[in-house]
Amino acid sequence: MPKIDPAKAPRAEGTRYPAPYDVPCRSRSWQRLGDAANLTQFGVNLLRLPPGTWSSQRHWHAHEDEFVYVLEGELVLVTDAGEERMSPGDCAGFKAGVRDGHCLQNRAATDALLLVIGSRIEHDHGEYSDIDMVFLPGRQAGGGGFRRKDGSEFRR
Amino acid sequence: MPKIDPAKAPRAEGTRYPAPYDVPCRSRSWQRLGDAANLTQFGVNLLRLPPGTWSSQRHWHAHEDEFVYVLEGELVLVTDAGEERMSPGDCAGFKAGVRDGHCLQNRAATDALLLVIGSRIEHDHGEYSDIDMVFLPGRQAGGGGFRRKDGSEFRR
Repeated sequence: MPKIDPAKAPRAEGTRYPAPYDVPCRSRSWQRLGDAANLTQFGVNLLRLPPGTWSSQRHWHAHEDEFVYVLEGELVLVTDAGEERMSPGDCAGFKAGVRDGHCLQNRAATDALLLVIGSRIEHDHGEYSDIDMVFLPGRQAGGGGFRRKDGSEFRR
Repeated sequence: MPKIDPAKAPRAEGTRYPAPYDVPCRSRSWQRLGDAANLTQFGVNLLRLPPGTWSSQRHWHAHEDEFVYVLEGELVLVTDAGEERMSPGDCAGFKAGVRDGHCLQNRAATDALLLVIGSRIEHDHGEYSDIDMVFLPGRQAGGGGFRRKDGSEFRR
């Protein structure tokens, strides 16, 4: 039957960010709802952010559109425009190529739950606004990875 | 500020289906949340279905992935597999090219609200499972339109 059982959708948690940038994202977890339906053109992830956790480091995508829709909890959306409070029913979109990084931070005392939708473009790459880091093409295929903005690697 | 004010998102309602296929969809209405953020790679529509209203005639897409997430109300998902009840938090995905039509019917006494996400591929086309109708490429640009499965036009 086509209805997705969220309990059976693929789960993931944490982050591949190099230290110390991983710290605020370690406790994030998500379910790959789109993958559960074999969708490939865009991802739909149900992202859970415990108190104190961020959706990501503040970033923008060169080629992929992204959209977020808040289902539960209270979040703070951080962009170049400043901070905005996001409550259930609030949403925001981030157009590919717009060099204004975004992230959602849970500063409240309860979990936040949101849908994150993003197109899947193999050559997508992007930058982090507040830290010296970029992400490389190829992450949809399990590659990608991170570099400093001068192209140098992070030490392991 | 990037947060979308749903009250200001573009609205649409009704259907372009030819009679009598328009009847169950006349009262549907939606807000184009993705368009409000200038996204072009996929659409995110907040669809409201009053009692008795269907999301669409049962259809499948040749080239576009589609995903639905129920926010409020109770719906019945109809596919070749039969009928499934969809409640808030339930979701389903429909892979491009899979010739198993779907629609969501509100048979309850209160409005249903759901997110409908679909990639945007100009040459997309598809068919309706239960009626003698297809939809033509070009609808993203305002073209498209409908034909019978033998290619003939509907009389106006």
